[in-house]
Amino acid sequence: MSAASLPTAIEKLGNLLGKRLSTGESVREHHGRDESWHTPALPDAVCFPESKEEVASVLQICSAHGVPVVPFGTGTGVEGAVVPTAGGVCIDVSGMNEVLGVRPEDMDCTVQPGVTRKQLNTYIRDTGLFFPIDPGADASLGGMAATRASGTNAVRYGTMRENVLSLTVALPDGRLISTGRRAKKSAAGYDLTRLFIGSEGTLGVIVELNLRLYGRPEAMSAARVYFDDVADAVNAVIETIQTGIPVARIELLDEIQMDAINKFSKTDFPLKPGLFLEFHGSNASVREQSEAVGEICEAYNGSAFEWTTGEEEQNKMWAARHDAAYATMALRPGARAYATDVCVPISRLADCIRETREDIASSTDLISTLLGHVGDGNFHYVLLVDPNDPEEYEQAKVLGERMAMRALEMGGTCTGEHGIGLGKRELLEKEFGEDGIAVMLSIKQAIDPKGIMNPGKIFL
Amino acid sequence: MSAASLPTAIEKLGNLLGKRLSTGESVREHHGRDESWHTPALPDAVCFPESKEEVASVLQICSAHGVPVVPFGTGTGVEGAVVPTAGGVCIDVSGMNEVLGVRPEDMDCTVQPGVTRKQLNTYIRDTGLFFPIDPGADASLGGMAATRASGTNAVRYGTMRENVLSLTVALPDGRLISTGRRAKKSAAGYDLTRLFIGSEGTLGVIVELNLRLYGRPEAMSAARVYFDDVADAVNAVIETIQTGIPVARIELLDEIQMDAINKFSKTDFPLKPGLFLEFHGSNASVREQSEAVGEICEAYNGSAFEWTTGEEEQNKMWAARHDAAYATMALRPGARAYATDVCVPISRLADCIRETREDIASSTDLISTLLGHVGDGNFHYVLLVDPNDPEEYEQAKVLGERMAMRALEMGGTCTGEHGIGLGKRELLEKEFGEDGIAVMLSIKQAIDPKGIMNPGKIFL
Repeated sequence: MSAASLPTAIEKLGNLLGKRLSTGESVREHHGRDESWHTPALPDAVCFPESKEEVASVLQICSAHGVPVVPFGTGTGVEGAVVPTAGGVCIDVSGMNEVLGVRPEDMDCTVQPGVTRKQLNTYIRDTGLFFPIDPGADASLGGMAATRASGTNAVRYGTMRENVLSLTVALPDGRLISTGRRAKKSAAGYDLTRLFIGSEGTLGVIVELNLRLYGRPEAMSAARVYFDDVADAVNAVIETIQTGIPVARIELLDEIQMDAINKFSKTDFPLKPGLFLEFHGSNASVREQSEAVGEICEAYNGSAFEWTTGEEEQNKMWAARHDAAYATMALRPGARAYATDVCVPISRLADCIRETREDIASSTDLISTLLGHVGDGNFHYVLLVDPNDPEEYEQAKVLGERMAMRALEMGGTCTGEHGIGLGKRELLEKEFGEDGIAVMLSIKQAIDPKGIMNPGKIFL
Repeated sequence: MSAASLPTAIEKLGNLLGKRLSTGESVREHHGRDESWHTPALPDAVCFPESKEEVASVLQICSAHGVPVVPFGTGTGVEGAVVPTAGGVCIDVSGMNEVLGVRPEDMDCTVQPGVTRKQLNTYIRDTGLFFPIDPGADASLGGMAATRASGTNAVRYGTMRENVLSLTVALPDGRLISTGRRAKKSAAGYDLTRLFIGSEGTLGVIVELNLRLYGRPEAMSAARVYFDDVADAVNAVIETIQTGIPVARIELLDEIQMDAINKFSKTDFPLKPGLFLEFHGSNASVREQSEAVGEICEAYNGSAFEWTTGEEEQNKMWAARHDAAYATMALRPGARAYATDVCVPISRLADCIRETREDIASSTDLISTLLGHVGDGNFHYVLLVDPNDPEEYEQAKVLGERMAMRALEMGGTCTGEHGIGLGKRELLEKEFGEDGIAVMLSIKQAIDPKGIMNPGKIFL
C-alpha cells in the first residue's frame, strides 16, 4: 500500500457507501479489538455494507489500491483475528443480518453473515427446527464459519465444519463465488466450502451461508454431578463417550469455576469439579441416557447426580454455564482473560488436564479456571492477568504454550475452536511443520496474491 | 515431459523399486481403466511402493522429470479418475495395505491407503467397532478419501468428508505432510484434510489415513416395503428424514432394478419400486424406528412392510442390494453401465426422480435402472449401453447431462459420490461457474505447479 493509495481508496469507499463508511475515532476503536488480551490496533476506516454486491465493490476498491481488509462480525473472538494490525479497512457485516430463506422441508436455511446464532434461533422458533452450534457468545454466523467455531453442542451436532452446507464468498478482488450447493453431500471438485471455513478472513469475505438445521428434540433433560477429583470427572466423560451415549452437551467445570459461577450467577453449586450435561431425544430416550450416565458417574464416585426435564431448572443451569467466562473475569475485576483452547484424543484427556493443572499449580499464582467441552476432548484454562503487568502476561503465555505443546505431543491440536488469529501463529507452525505451513501459504498466495486479506493473521 | 525424460525417470524408478516397477503389458492394461465406460489408456509404467517414503521418492523422480503420475487404489471408480490419459506413471498403493493402529478408546484408527473397507472391518471385528462408509465396491480407503466416497450408510454416518480425521499426503514434489491431528475438532489453519478429500489424485498421493470408527450398534434391523409408484416411495423417504428418524440406510430401487436383482441374486422381491432400510440402535430403539417408518410408509400406500432383526435375512437382502450394479449389467450381457449420480435437496428429490424417469422413458429404449441413497437426496440411474455403439453412448450421455442440469437447477450437485474424473468436467464448470473453477485451478497450480498429478482429471 503506497501512502497515497489509502486516502484515494477511502474517498472511493465514501462515494460508494456514503455515511456507511466511517473514519470516526470511536467507530474505529470499536473495531480495533476483540474480547481477548491482544493489543488493539485501529483500522483506518470502517465500512458497513448492506449487500454482498457492496462487499464485492469494497473489495474491488481495496484490491485496486492494495489496502488491507479485515472482515468483522461481532468482535467476540478471542485470538485477535479481527485486530487490524496493518490498519486498512474493516468490513463490518453486522448490517447484513437478514435471514434470506428457511426451508423446513430441507432442514436448512440461508443467512447473511451478520445474522447471529440467537437471532437465527429466534427467527426459526416456530418451525420446530434449531441451529445447534453454540460457542457461548452470541456471535455472527459469518464469524463463526470464519473461525470454524463449535462449543457446547458440538459433541452431538458437530462444528461449523459439519453444519455449513455451502457459502457465498467475496474473493479479495471482488469476484463472488459459490462454494457449493445445498445438497447434503457432493463429490464435485475441491471442497471450497471447508477451505473458507476456518480461514479467519484471510482468503475472502463470507457474504452468505447455507446452514443445516435440526428438528428440536421431543424432549431435553439436563443433569449435574460432582466429583472429588477432576480426574474422576474426566474418566466418567471418557466412558460415557466410549459407551456411545449420544450426549448433546457434556461440560466440565473445576471447583474454582464453580465458585466463580456461584458468585456471579447467584447459584449454589457445590465447590467441587462437576459435569453439566444435556440429553436430547424422545422422552424415553432422555430418561435412558440420563440414567445410563448416572450409573457411569456413580462408578467414578460422582455424587449428587440429579437430572431434570424441568425447563426452568435447565435454563438456569445453562445460563450460569454460558456466563462462566464473565464469571471468571469477575473474580479479579480489571483483569483480562488469557484463554487457552487445546483439543486432544479423548484417551489423553485425563492426562492432558492433570498435567496442565499441575503445571499451573506449580508455576503461577494467577487465578485460573477450567472449563471444557470434554466430550470432544476440548478444554480451556482461563488465566486472569493484570493488563498492566507484562510479567503476568508472560506467565500466562508460557503456560499456554506448554499446554499447547503437551496437546500436540498427545496427538491433539493447539486450538479446538478459537482459531489461530494473532495468538497461535507460532503454535500453528509447530502443529503443521514447515511443509504443511508452506502448503497453506501457497493457497493464501493463490487466492489472495496481493495479500490484502486480514494480513498478519494465522501466519507469521 | 520431454521425450527423453520418461525413459530416464522409469530407469530411476526401476533402481528404486526393482521388480516393484512394471512396464509389462498386462499390468499396464490392468491400470488403464476403472469400472466405467471411459475409454482406457495405458500408463507407461506401474509402481508398487510399500511405504510412504517410497511414494515420496517416486514423486521426487517423476516431479524432477515432469512425468505424469496417477494414484491407483482398487480401480473400482466409475468416472475414469484413474485412467492415465496422459500416460506416465501409475502409483498402485494396493501393497500399502497395513492397518497401522487401532485405538478403541479413541474410536479411531490409522491405515495405509491400500487397506480396503472390508479388510478394515474384518481387522477390527473383535473391538466392537466398525467403519461405516460403504460405497458398494470393496474399495481402498485411500481411493475412497480421494473420491469423497459415501454410499448406503451416509445418511446416518456421513461421508468420507466427515469420517477422515486427518491424512498424511505425499505432495507432488515428494514432501510428506500431515493435514491434521487426531483430535475430533480443530480450528487450526486451513482445512487441508478436507482439501485433499475429493481431490481425486490431482494434488498429491494419500499415503496414510486417520479414520473415525463407531461402536457397533447393540441391535440392527432391516425392513422392506413396496409401492405402486416411485413418487410414493420417495415421499415416504422425505417424511422419514424430516421426522428425524435416524435411519442407517434407506435405499430406493425401482421395479426394473428389483427384477434385475431377482434374476441375479435368486431373490423373489415383488416387481415394484421398493425401499430397503436398516436401523441401528438399542433393541427398543430399532423396534421404535422400524415401526415409525412402517407407519409412514403405510400412509404413502406402501405394502408388505416387514422388518426383521434376523441376521440371515438381513445379510441376504443387503448382499442382493450390493450386487445391484452387477445385476443391472447382467440384464444385457456385454453392455457397459453408464452411471449417473446426482444429489439434490430432499424437497426436490421426488421432482428430480419423476422428471428424470419421464425424460428417460420418452427419449430412449436403453435399459435403465434406478437406485438411490435417497435419505441424502442422492440417486443413480444406470443406463446399459453397447460399447460398440456410439449412438447409444451419446443417448446415455445426453440423458445424464440433462439429469445433472436438472439437479443443478434444483440446488443440487452433478455428483453425490462418484466424483468428477473425466466424465463430469464440463458439468463441474456448470456447477461452480468460471470464477469457482478459477479458484480451484489456482489451488491446483499452487500445490502442483508442474501439473504432474493426474493431469486431465476434474478440470478440462
